[in-house]
Amino acid sequence: MLENYKHVFKLDPNKTISDAHLERLCESETDLIIVGGTDGVTQSNVLDLMSRIRRYMTPVALELSNLEAVVPGFDHYFVPAVFNTKDMKFLHGMLLEALERYAHLLDYDTISLMPYLIFNEECKAYKYANCEPINRENMAYYIQLIDKMYRQKYMYIEFSGTLAEKELLQDIYETKTNVHMIYGGGIDSKEAFDERAPFADTLVVGNLIYEDFEAALNTVIRS
Amino acid sequence: MLENYKHVFKLDPNKTISDAHLERLCESETDLIIVGGTDGVTQSNVLDLMSRIRRYMTPVALELSNLEAVVPGFDHYFVPAVFNTKDMKFLHGMLLEALERYAHLLDYDTISLMPYLIFNEECKAYKYANCEPINRENMAYYIQLIDKMYRQKYMYIEFSGTLAEKELLQDIYETKTNVHMIYGGGIDSKEAFDERAPFADTLVVGNLIYEDFEAALNTVIRS
Repeated sequence: MLENYKHVFKLDPNKTISDAHLERLCESETDLIIVGGTDGVTQSNVLDLMSRIRRYMTPVALELSNLEAVVPGFDHYFVPAVFNTKDMKFLHGMLLEALERYAHLLDYDTISLMPYLIFNEECKAYKYANCEPINRENMAYYIQLIDKMYRQKYMYIEFSGTLAEKELLQDIYETKTNVHMIYGGGIDSKEAFDERAPFADTLVVGNLIYEDFEAALNTVIRS
Repeated sequence: MLENYKHVFKLDPNKTISDAHLERLCESETDLIIVGGTDGVTQSNVLDLMSRIRRYMTPVALELSNLEAVVPGFDHYFVPAVFNTKDMKFLHGMLLEALERYAHLLDYDTISLMPYLIFNEECKAYKYANCEPINRENMAYYIQLIDKMYRQKYMYIEFSGTLAEKELLQDIYETKTNVHMIYGGGIDSKEAFDERAPFADTLVVGNLIYEDFEAALNTVIRS
């Protein structure tokens, strides 16, 4: 999963999208749709969104940020583990709880750990997961921790709500070696996407879908 | 490292071993010597022990449990990460600090993360690392966490000072899939070693070296 996926749309089950818009997203050239959000994610709204996406051929994955909203039938499941948290609960406390509740149902071939580094100190996820700040000084060590020590497959660079400078992404991209780097946060135009595209393996367009649908759809057009 | 290593001697740089005993250990059929301990490990006693072991051909690795005692020249370095700690510091807090201090010196090909599960609630390491108890109920989830979610190469089952029931080890061994399982704790005779040998990929003989040298040396003889 993700290896050759450059463009991802992230849909929030707690937000509204019309059938017409959903159809245009799913029939675009996007590589994957990820379903996930921070607030108000329930089994019912996840199930509803999944069944609507399933009318189309686009692969769809669920981000398991909430254990109340585990729904079978996705192509893949990502389990977030926040590597810059101060609190074990957000690293693997939640994972352990997930295993206790769902281990009997799990097919590990369709589940991946998704190590997160949350950069934007103002965003909900940063506060919720009780994070440590990542700055120019310690950034390289966090990357090496995930990439070289834990030897993880994925690393999610989360700017949630703000747009990372492309020079910063370039630094991260040039520091990492084997890990597949995903970037998400603040992509608000095709230009913002295209400028950052060389410095991440996968880029995620999320909020823009709800703020300016045409601009969001535009990000997927390969120049 | 470790793949085909069934028998390991673990030497504590803070304990005394005679040249004659060290020679017999190093010239035994053991696969590897690990240098590591909990208390009183210093750069000076690590360096001293390494240089004495280096007279022989046996490979020798350093367990980096103390950042004051990092010494170059070992064949391999293991960085412990306690997966059943309540405190981020013992999971990767220490790793981050190590990266900040030594990243410029590190050759990642010779460094491996060593995920630990510390079972013995009475041992120093358990208390020091502020651990959560592992019991029959949650054991499988901790194993899956390391083995299937984090997809780690190694898993160290630490009984430090007590001897695990072989049935318990068998359970662990049958639960894990790809991870290389190391067992350490309380091996006090060749019989204790041989009984547990089918249920771990690598077994570590430590304290016995200092308590009953001949019995320790005996564990290495293949029956």
